[in-house]
Amino acid sequence: MTPMTNPSTVLSAIDQHHIDQRRYPHGVAFMDGQYLPMSEAKISVLDWGLLHSDATYDTVHVWNGRFFRLDLHLDRFLAGVERLRMKLPYDREKIASILKQCVALSGHKSAYVEMICTRGSSPTFSRDPRQAENRFIAFAVPYGSVANDEQLERGLHVAISETVRIPPNSVDPTIKNYHWLDLVKGLFDAYDKGAETALILDTNGHVAEGPGFNVFLVKDGWLRTPAFGVLPGITRRTVLDLCAEIGLAATAADINRDDLKKADEVFITSTAGGIMPVTRIDDTTISKGQVGSITRRLTDLYWQKHADPAWSTAIIYP
Amino acid sequence: MTPMTNPSTVLSAIDQHHIDQRRYPHGVAFMDGQYLPMSEAKISVLDWGLLHSDATYDTVHVWNGRFFRLDLHLDRFLAGVERLRMKLPYDREKIASILKQCVALSGHKSAYVEMICTRGSSPTFSRDPRQAENRFIAFAVPYGSVANDEQLERGLHVAISETVRIPPNSVDPTIKNYHWLDLVKGLFDAYDKGAETALILDTNGHVAEGPGFNVFLVKDGWLRTPAFGVLPGITRRTVLDLCAEIGLAATAADINRDDLKKADEVFITSTAGGIMPVTRIDDTTISKGQVGSITRRLTDLYWQKHADPAWSTAIIYP
Repeated sequence: MTPMTNPSTVLSAIDQHHIDQRRYPHGVAFMDGQYLPMSEAKISVLDWGLLHSDATYDTVHVWNGRFFRLDLHLDRFLAGVERLRMKLPYDREKIASILKQCVALSGHKSAYVEMICTRGSSPTFSRDPRQAENRFIAFAVPYGSVANDEQLERGLHVAISETVRIPPNSVDPTIKNYHWLDLVKGLFDAYDKGAETALILDTNGHVAEGPGFNVFLVKDGWLRTPAFGVLPGITRRTVLDLCAEIGLAATAADINRDDLKKADEVFITSTAGGIMPVTRIDDTTISKGQVGSITRRLTDLYWQKHADPAWSTAIIYP
Repeated sequence: MTPMTNPSTVLSAIDQHHIDQRRYPHGVAFMDGQYLPMSEAKISVLDWGLLHSDATYDTVHVWNGRFFRLDLHLDRFLAGVERLRMKLPYDREKIASILKQCVALSGHKSAYVEMICTRGSSPTFSRDPRQAENRFIAFAVPYGSVANDEQLERGLHVAISETVRIPPNSVDPTIKNYHWLDLVKGLFDAYDKGAETALILDTNGHVAEGPGFNVFLVKDGWLRTPAFGVLPGITRRTVLDLCAEIGLAATAADINRDDLKKADEVFITSTAGGIMPVTRIDDTTISKGQVGSITRRLTDLYWQKHADPAWSTAIIYP
């Protein structure tokens, strides 16, 4: 190194535009009144949605050109926005219209559709959340699932992590939120054990939920899903609704690790994948390693409902 | 509305570029090898740093053209990146150089400087964090403080919220993270009570910390700051170091609400503002509503250290 090139005295130039070499999935986003390709859907690094995870969101899916239970997702999203004391410039009807446009413009017949409200930011970078201009974003990308086709066929291998889900007296789980480091930790714990995904615990040591899904067990014909400290998932609710419809007993109550390992059947539920079988928990094989009959029956019924106008909404494509 | 303008059948156009009307503070950011104005520093809405708050960060400040304790901030940031199993394309020396360039290019003699590592994303929007390409961002904006000049003079009014800080068995607080909805809830609780900022509790009901700061009390010449479930703040550590230097007794141990209200002095510590006096907690006046003598002595010493080469690093401006 010569004295002339001492790196601490050589100043770089400021570029006027960011050049982004990354690739993004095909889809359409909505921001600030514009519909945009996914590569343009970006928020400032100063948005409190990033810097404080001060945001709520919801995801709804489209299957065969129809939203599934859109109203329930809108209900949950709008309730979350209000409880975080954020304000949107759009009403419920306009948001529904934006989501439909994103999907229609994307052309995706099966889509994963997300609506987001972040705290946003203020021009002065004020730390007072009341001074921030809230931000709304929506996007539609191809449908994705927690479980791939092979896993749906043979059942997922799940490991139970010692990590504890963020408790309700810290962050209200009924406000759908991005506080996921506990779930990500659980996921890495599961990978370390050779499993494919994770369940983590509630503050009392019971099984809570996994990264993006709720869990159910079936024992002697009864279904059970955790009640405490979990996201009230729409797919979870859908399973409870389907059970009521076909006369299966189902309750929301504590589940401990042994309950799960001694269950006749176990499955997980998520907007990203629907009802997905679990056939191994840690080193215990569930349901003889086969997808159980009640899991299969509910899964079939779940997908049938996607064509039912009482449960789904058609999208009009160009 | 005529049949021809039925909104559900009129499709919007897709714009190729996002038009951002928002204003941002003056500063310089670094992303993907480029130095950019703050208005260009944006991340994809698909980055898991937003969608899962799967990120770590650190903030260091510049005062009178000098970084304060940059090495300690780099230590904590790099440890967090490793513990979240993320990988950066830059080593410690390069990151320090990037931070210096951001500040020098911004021209700010007093700056708030943030380095961020997010999980990033994958082109397929895979849910597996191992497949994501991690993202590094740094930026320098004008220095900001938790307390404004008036509050620094007369002391802050703080309310204690019943909200519980996310516990360590959920999210490791030694990995500096953006899981702030508990702190934001505490802040709104404080605003509702007419206070200016908040303290929230740990899982045992002791006082933990506030939005972006640690807390200290002084009683009979002894200093105490919470030990459990709090961010190990660099300014907190600096206060402990200064106490050692001038022979003040200081310990990290539980503090309950009454301890705080019966203290001789109370102050908070943050990179955003340094050592800041508290003269009111809920309805209790502390230190006769005046900034206490030990608080003042430590504050003076804290700012003196900013010119000391053992504690600070000069930035070479163009």
